[in-house]
Amino acid sequence: MNRFSNDDIAAVYRVIAERRDVRHFLSDPIDPDLMVRVLQAAHLAPSVGFMQPWRFIRIVDPARRQAVYELVEQERIATAHALAQREDEFMRLKVEGIRECGEVLVVALMDRCEEHVFGRRTLPEMDLASVSCAIQNMWLAARAEGIGMGWVSMFEPEQLKQLLQMPAGAKPIAILCLGHVAAFYAKPMLEQQGWAARQSLSDLLFVDRWGAIESPAVPE
Amino acid sequence: MNRFSNDDIAAVYRVIAERRDVRHFLSDPIDPDLMVRVLQAAHLAPSVGFMQPWRFIRIVDPARRQAVYELVEQERIATAHALAQREDEFMRLKVEGIRECGEVLVVALMDRCEEHVFGRRTLPEMDLASVSCAIQNMWLAARAEGIGMGWVSMFEPEQLKQLLQMPAGAKPIAILCLGHVAAFYAKPMLEQQGWAARQSLSDLLFVDRWGAIESPAVPE
Repeated sequence: MNRFSNDDIAAVYRVIAERRDVRHFLSDPIDPDLMVRVLQAAHLAPSVGFMQPWRFIRIVDPARRQAVYELVEQERIATAHALAQREDEFMRLKVEGIRECGEVLVVALMDRCEEHVFGRRTLPEMDLASVSCAIQNMWLAARAEGIGMGWVSMFEPEQLKQLLQMPAGAKPIAILCLGHVAAFYAKPMLEQQGWAARQSLSDLLFVDRWGAIESPAVPE
Repeated sequence: MNRFSNDDIAAVYRVIAERRDVRHFLSDPIDPDLMVRVLQAAHLAPSVGFMQPWRFIRIVDPARRQAVYELVEQERIATAHALAQREDEFMRLKVEGIRECGEVLVVALMDRCEEHVFGRRTLPEMDLASVSCAIQNMWLAARAEGIGMGWVSMFEPEQLKQLLQMPAGAKPIAILCLGHVAAFYAKPMLEQQGWAARQSLSDLLFVDRWGAIESPAVPE
């Protein structure tokens, strides 16, 4: 039958609910076989025109990892200034775990994706959409395996591209930190720390046109 | 403990492996409670700065659904012409199931996302990345529940935006078809039909810089 067992459905909903964007890691190494499994989970993501536009760069050399960290730190300062009135509050947030996590992966869009016209003629950004689905697969697989993962998007892409010698059409879109954790946050870290609140799903769901709220409201 | 049980880990990997981008639907209606569950799964996705940039528009009115279909059909013809030498092959592919599926949802990026500077100052497209993670959650939840889902990106976004009366900063990025299916494809449909081949993960995985293949290669 098409439907999974109740237990398996519950496991799928549980991993979706308990996945977290993690910034606090233990430095223990990750089992290499586990890394292969979560990368294979990423590679099973959907992609527009089956173009499989994801590329993964494992950062293994400590000096290379330090250089990645420095790019992020530079952008963290720039972000803080741009936030103006919330600058101090922002600077107290932990926004990455690059130096202490077990594995750092840079994820990039491939070059030459303009050759894949099917499904992205009017929406060329669909390569990013596909790679994001792959990252979400990896996030969920890692969570089930007990490994935390964080997506750091705080960097200047052109600088990271040069650092990792990417070709003209490629673009880095994520620095992923993966690692063992003492515990997963009970709620998203930015919610726990009062940075932003969870919205009500019923406010985000419309019928037939933007802004038309369904009645009765979706239960939360 | 942080790690799920072996059975639950297997369920997570199974749903990732058996999820398909579906274009062939039965027209039976979807249980409204199931729709709420998969939308809640979407809403549990990560988002940059916890901005939760996803908006969902259920297409309920049959005339509205027909209008959405016509936008896609128009772009399908334009895509076929753009594909040139593969035009005939493309026109034989089934690329959407809008008229026959149980539910059509349009997913959009919210307006005013420029207010959320944290994590997207240098990568403003991170709102699309977050919404794509939400769609992947929905895809996996639907698959576990035995419901097929397809992401149609073949439309002119400005036209769909006008049809659904979206505000200036909002943008539609997906037409999702959800529905019961006779069976899930054994492999991705575009792979089954010979449109494109599954790449080898080891060709997509580099070390420390673009193009540096890890040795020994990742087992497939």
